[in-house]
Amino acid sequence: MLKITRLDIADARVLIAGAAEKAKEIGVPMCIAITDESGNLIAFERMDGGKVTSTTIAIDKAFTAAGAKKATHDYGTASQPGAPAYGIASAIGGRLMVVGGGLPVIVNGEVVGGIGVSSGTPAQDREVAEAGIEAFLKTV
Amino acid sequence: MLKITRLDIADARVLIAGAAEKAKEIGVPMCIAITDESGNLIAFERMDGGKVTSTTIAIDKAFTAAGAKKATHDYGTASQPGAPAYGIASAIGGRLMVVGGGLPVIVNGEVVGGIGVSSGTPAQDREVAEAGIEAFLKTV
Amino acid sequence: MLKITRLDIADARVLIAGAAEKAKEIGVPMCIAITDESGNLIAFERMDGGKVTSTTIAIDKAFTAAGAKKATHDYGTASQPGAPAYGIASAIGGRLMVVGGGLPVIVNGEVVGGIGVSSGTPAQDREVAEAGIEAFLKTV
Amino acid sequence: MLKITRLDIADARVLIAGAAEKAKEIGVPMCIAITDESGNLIAFERMDGGKVTSTTIAIDKAFTAAGAKKATHDYGTASQPGAPAYGIASAIGGRLMVVGGGLPVIVNGEVVGGIGVSSGTPAQDREVAEAGIEAFLKTV
Repeated sequence: MLKITRLDIADARVLIAGAAEKAKEIGVPMCIAITDESGNLIAFERMDGGKVTSTTIAIDKAFTAAGAKKATHDYGTASQPGAPAYGIASAIGGRLMVVGGGLPVIVNGEVVGGIGVSSGTPAQDREVAEAGIEAFLKTV
Repeated sequence: MLKITRLDIADARVLIAGAAEKAKEIGVPMCIAITDESGNLIAFERMDGGKVTSTTIAIDKAFTAAGAKKATHDYGTASQPGAPAYGIASAIGGRLMVVGGGLPVIVNGEVVGGIGVSSGTPAQDREVAEAGIEAFLKTV
Repeated sequence: MLKITRLDIADARVLIAGAAEKAKEIGVPMCIAITDESGNLIAFERMDGGKVTSTTIAIDKAFTAAGAKKATHDYGTASQPGAPAYGIASAIGGRLMVVGGGLPVIVNGEVVGGIGVSSGTPAQDREVAEAGIEAFLKTV
Repeated sequence: MLKITRLDIADARVLIAGAAEKAKEIGVPMCIAITDESGNLIAFERMDGGKVTSTTIAIDKAFTAAGAKKATHDYGTASQPGAPAYGIASAIGGRLMVVGGGLPVIVNGEVVGGIGVSSGTPAQDREVAEAGIEAFLKTV
């Protein structure tokens, strides 16, 4: 059998709080989703003013990053026209996200969860996701 | 035009905390979802040990209760074989939940959101959802 | 963070082999699916003559049993008309299975995966799933 | 009426074993799916460390290759912006895969099944799928 390490709900709250702080700092209310290492949702918050359409997008960015062990912006590059993974964006019923803002949460080289952020530009979403991870890694 | 009153993210956290406290008290780790009055997710937490399958079920219970302005257990009664709403359980791609544990959040006679709880028996889910609303109403 | 124990691919093969042996013994070619504790597929076999429609059913039985930590036949009882979980069968886009043949795989009181079997009667499916678990537990 | 030639479960195991051996050789744990000539799943294995998101992707690559009698990487070329099949990637609810790693299994000029591989780069996925077919053709 395999031994897996996984974010717990307290970890998820730290990730969301760290991300939300950065979102406030840059003035963009965000949807923030945290999944476990298998891509299943642990926690979610839509900040006041966050976009309704971003609810699913944030959840699916976290799902993609955790499940594929890969930042969603890396899929963005790999799936451009002419690039090897072109067309992957519509896989898994459209759940596979190739837009920036989804990051795997990695501890000791192991993916333990994912964070997905949406409502700003992809660059803002990514910055906010990174802030969440930064805040979390200080607690590990 | 309409003026809508809606839960904010701080309200959502109070609802989740109130529900989680009851869940701990009865010893059943739960999935707890809060939607706004339009049925869109505001916040979600899967307590450590909450069921993976209950993630979607909790979200859909809150969606149903807020959107239909009705407790999901009332749909349970109304959708029994021979009853008027028989068959409604598979509506909206299966999102319309008729199992107890989803309640509209009502302030001054107006639905301002929904809470959905899943992982226990339907009676436990409902009890935990009620505790969330009780905790919230104290703050209004 | 949480520490999780999960079936590996070798375990999944043992579960399938044990189930398939029983399926041959009773003369019913089966679809047999093994998921991890999060409900994600690890391995699947459709025996020659297994039903095409049973592919998804077997996978969803294993998903339900692992994710809900519960035998699917228990949901069958709890979701009868008039019973508390009536209507649950169409939840999660219809993936929540209430028909017998899905069992959680439990080691030391912890759910480490799920097995789902389909193509026979629910009683046959369940018998075959149990045989898979029996074969696996001998190796733990 | 038609006479169809189709992979059996023993063939499917040979295909998976051949693919998995190559996957180990290149050090990339893979999801490997085998479908029959109708695109219905016969067998699947997620090697330890294979990506959760690749489960569906591998199955859909095999489905596409068998059903369309065409390598998925050929669709990749044909579906580029300006090319005749542009936009096909989102067909069938996103199941039609245009990323490399799906190959029809062909015997005597007839498609008898499909193999789909996912978790590596599309080039790696394709290499591993080819190794599966190579191993299988030695047994025909």
